Amino acid sequence: MISVIIAGFNGTMGQKAVQLITASPEFQLAGAYNPHVTSRRATDYGLDGAVSIYNDLQQITTPADVWLDFSTPGGVANNAQFAITQGMHPVIGTSGLTAEQQHRLQATANARQLGGIIAPNFGVTAVLMMKFAQQAATYLKRAEIVEYHHEDKLDAPSGTALNTARLIYAAQQADEPQPSSEQDLLGTRGGDYHGIKIHAVRLPGFVADEEVIFGGPGETLTIKQSTTDRQSFMAGVKLAITAVMQRQDLVIGLENIL
Amino acid sequence: MISVIIAGFNGTMGQKAVQLITASPEFQLAGAYNPHVTSRRATDYGLDGAVSIYNDLQQITTPADVWLDFSTPGGVANNAQFAITQGMHPVIGTSGLTAEQQHRLQATANARQLGGIIAPNFGVTAVLMMKFAQQAATYLKRAEIVEYHHEDKLDAPSGTALNTARLIYAAQQADEPQPSSEQDLLGTRGGDYHGIKIHAVRLPGFVADEEVIFGGPGETLTIKQSTTDRQSFMAGVKLAITAVMQRQDLVIGLENIL
Amino acid sequence: MISVIIAGFNGTMGQKAVQLITASPEFQLAGAYNPHVTSRRATDYGLDGAVSIYNDLQQITTPADVWLDFSTPGGVANNAQFAITQGMHPVIGTSGLTAEQQHRLQATANARQLGGIIAPNFGVTAVLMMKFAQQAATYLKRAEIVEYHHEDKLDAPSGTALNTARLIYAAQQADEPQPSSEQDLLGTRGGDYHGIKIHAVRLPGFVADEEVIFGGPGETLTIKQSTTDRQSFMAGVKLAITAVMQRQDLVIGLENIL
Amino acid sequence: MISVIIAGFNGTMGQKAVQLITASPEFQLAGAYNPHVTSRRATDYGLDGAVSIYNDLQQITTPADVWLDFSTPGGVANNAQFAITQGMHPVIGTSGLTAEQQHRLQATANARQLGGIIAPNFGVTAVLMMKFAQQAATYLKRAEIVEYHHEDKLDAPSGTALNTARLIYAAQQADEPQPSSEQDLLGTRGGDYHGIKIHAVRLPGFVADEEVIFGGPGETLTIKQSTTDRQSFMAGVKLAITAVMQRQDLVIGLENIL
Repeated sequence: MISVIIAGFNGTMGQKAVQLITASPEFQLAGAYNPHVTSRRATDYGLDGAVSIYNDLQQITTPADVWLDFSTPGGVANNAQFAITQGMHPVIGTSGLTAEQQHRLQATANARQLGGIIAPNFGVTAVLMMKFAQQAATYLKRAEIVEYHHEDKLDAPSGTALNTARLIYAAQQADEPQPSSEQDLLGTRGGDYHGIKIHAVRLPGFVADEEVIFGGPGETLTIKQSTTDRQSFMAGVKLAITAVMQRQDLVIGLENIL
Repeated sequence: MISVIIAGFNGTMGQKAVQLITASPEFQLAGAYNPHVTSRRATDYGLDGAVSIYNDLQQITTPADVWLDFSTPGGVANNAQFAITQGMHPVIGTSGLTAEQQHRLQATANARQLGGIIAPNFGVTAVLMMKFAQQAATYLKRAEIVEYHHEDKLDAPSGTALNTARLIYAAQQADEPQPSSEQDLLGTRGGDYHGIKIHAVRLPGFVADEEVIFGGPGETLTIKQSTTDRQSFMAGVKLAITAVMQRQDLVIGLENIL
Repeated sequence: MISVIIAGFNGTMGQKAVQLITASPEFQLAGAYNPHVTSRRATDYGLDGAVSIYNDLQQITTPADVWLDFSTPGGVANNAQFAITQGMHPVIGTSGLTAEQQHRLQATANARQLGGIIAPNFGVTAVLMMKFAQQAATYLKRAEIVEYHHEDKLDAPSGTALNTARLIYAAQQADEPQPSSEQDLLGTRGGDYHGIKIHAVRLPGFVADEEVIFGGPGETLTIKQSTTDRQSFMAGVKLAITAVMQRQDLVIGLENIL
Repeated sequence: MISVIIAGFNGTMGQKAVQLITASPEFQLAGAYNPHVTSRRATDYGLDGAVSIYNDLQQITTPADVWLDFSTPGGVANNAQFAITQGMHPVIGTSGLTAEQQHRLQATANARQLGGIIAPNFGVTAVLMMKFAQQAATYLKRAEIVEYHHEDKLDAPSGTALNTARLIYAAQQADEPQPSSEQDLLGTRGGDYHGIKIHAVRLPGFVADEEVIFGGPGETLTIKQSTTDRQSFMAGVKLAITAVMQRQDLVIGLENIL
């Protein structure tokens, strides 16, 4: 049985993480951390009385196997550093770590041969889509990406769409050719990343869908990932917890353990 | 049995039209016209010997029921005028008629109570998609359009995509609202027609697909038309020939007879 | 402003209905009914103190404009009869009314020229899909239906899929032709309704999607409805409340007011 | 430059192969074989005069690098045996070889360290779809397959659909769980292969599409392959010719060289 401490246990993702850990017989919720809570009674949060509630890292004297972090951009670097020092395998889903901070955490964990993961996206289908896109790009030289999100997402394209384009370009190592004489007064041909076109749809009714389409003479290949509920991320978290226990290094990106 | 003369009978579309008319027991190929052919022997073109071949309009002394035109932009206006004067129902698939020419032909045909049609697109599924989009637009206030064509199509968006946006806007009579603070450095949000976003994909492997997506709270409605072979247009031609025989006016657009 | 009493106000759908009515400036929540609640204090249910809570129909002495029913199969017939007698426009989303009960309610409401609706499905996109399928069936003679639901749905096909097949058959008035010599040992060709094949997919990750595909020579037309959140039904409820106020009869099925 | 002899050069696939080889600067059409042709003049078949036409294997005294076979089930085994004996790399697209024949050819080629391939399907996107399905099956435990073909295909399911199910089962090594109490009077749940459901759609307008859908909590992954023109197979043939020149063994299935 793998024991887990959850940082940011009462945020949106933290609550889903609590559900996951308490519902899985192979995991045990040892503790929950949030520097902003005042009560330290687990039952105040609907948790089993045996769970330790911490609002200060110094209170954590008995380390768990895994430190699962869904806290805040401001706190995550310090949390992860603490977890590694205590010998807890870090599984970090909180965004906001700089590349430099990531590399420092990686160096510290690797020196201790401590398995861990930092992942901006725990969606298994999104990560598989990216992996398959990278493989397909070797055989099919033309690709476009369409992503569909709810109308409240104000930035475009999605991080997953842009990452997918990066992986395709890395596999092809050449810009996809574009016709010189295209006529497109309205700008309908989408964003361009080294010749790979990216299109972003924003409509109510979507949660988060990502689609990459490859075309060749007389055939197309479409790989589409569709999210209907954010609980989908928890399947990736479960895989990650199990994987880091077997590893001796800290990896960045769920694709490295799938 | 409806008798038909085909103008432009040996072009790409003309040949498909010849196949359609000769294969349908309810139609009879009476004649075939092209001012540029020299031989007037039908068997030289693989046609039944009873079919009259014309290379001059003045040779056509016995009018057929229907004048089916897949000729050239330069000749179509004159052809259609001739057909109407002779009492033949015009079914015009040739592009290139100006709005003024269309209205003049319409006036002449209507004065004689002669049914006819001028249609830029005889694809039944494309026309149904546009009709349904217009109906849906009354109930679902947000829509985006994605069209997919082979990589040799150099203009974007497609005429069908733009027409679909026009019909949605006509039904809604208001611009779709756009967030003021969208971040889209790459231009992935597509072309804008009164708030309706249009995205154009160009990849080998596609012939011509058009898709309109409507979004509402917790649900989406997608209407997609997919063409795998240009012979698809012939179903619309067949509907048109049958319909013009029943009408007393000339309409513009297949949607008016569906 | 349209005043509304909600029956079954604290069930799953009832709660969503309460949210809809209180959030819409054109509606006013006048009362809430459930024979099984004991407290009659609105604030006990998080409602505005001005809302009347009823646990007995006889307490409802001031009728509202609309009676919105998301109660139980056992209570709905009596509720609806009461509402009509009091001159309240019934909007009934509760299932379980027999055809005979529906007709009796219809007769009573129509005699009073009271607009109302009984609808098994308030999803606007599902109803539009069915309408469009019926229209398309006149022009495209071959259709198949694929529906996708979560793995906990134990019955197949969905009611919407079967209704769609019925509407297509009603439009075509002939069985779709089937090849005599098909080889299909595994039973992959799906269920058959007058030659219209129906396929049911059951997988985690889906909420409720319905798709009808029409095929013709060289082209296909796909109409797909996708649900990501059950709140989608509330758009149809809103349309229904507005529509019944303008009508003098009781209709069955949302398609009759779209 | 790789020299190629094409067996079955004037069949449907053979003609496409001739086009491929003559249009590719890295390939050279050295000869063309068909035991049923009488004229041995290349220009009678629209080929360059330098191409040797053979109607008897014994005439082939100068072997080419590659033997590309799109002949007939009756002739292919003998052809392939001949090619290997002459040191030509076999690329076999003709169906009809028994498992025993395949193994014998494999043994002969491997003993000579001669690279070759026997492939029932040269569609690159179909093969990639199968590869990705096998990979995804490790992480996502529930899958269904939907295939779409033209209405003249009388057998169901397609070979590709069934192969995809086999690969998923091989990866999961367990039947997918099925609810015990499913109600499905019409048989809409499709064919069953170890718990993986297969659905076959037959409609005009489709050429050949294959789709595998994986579901997990709150998310789905769809991998879809769509064929619009049979020329698509030639991309796989090109890959195969290039690959066999680098190999020392004969493989069965395009997936082994992608």
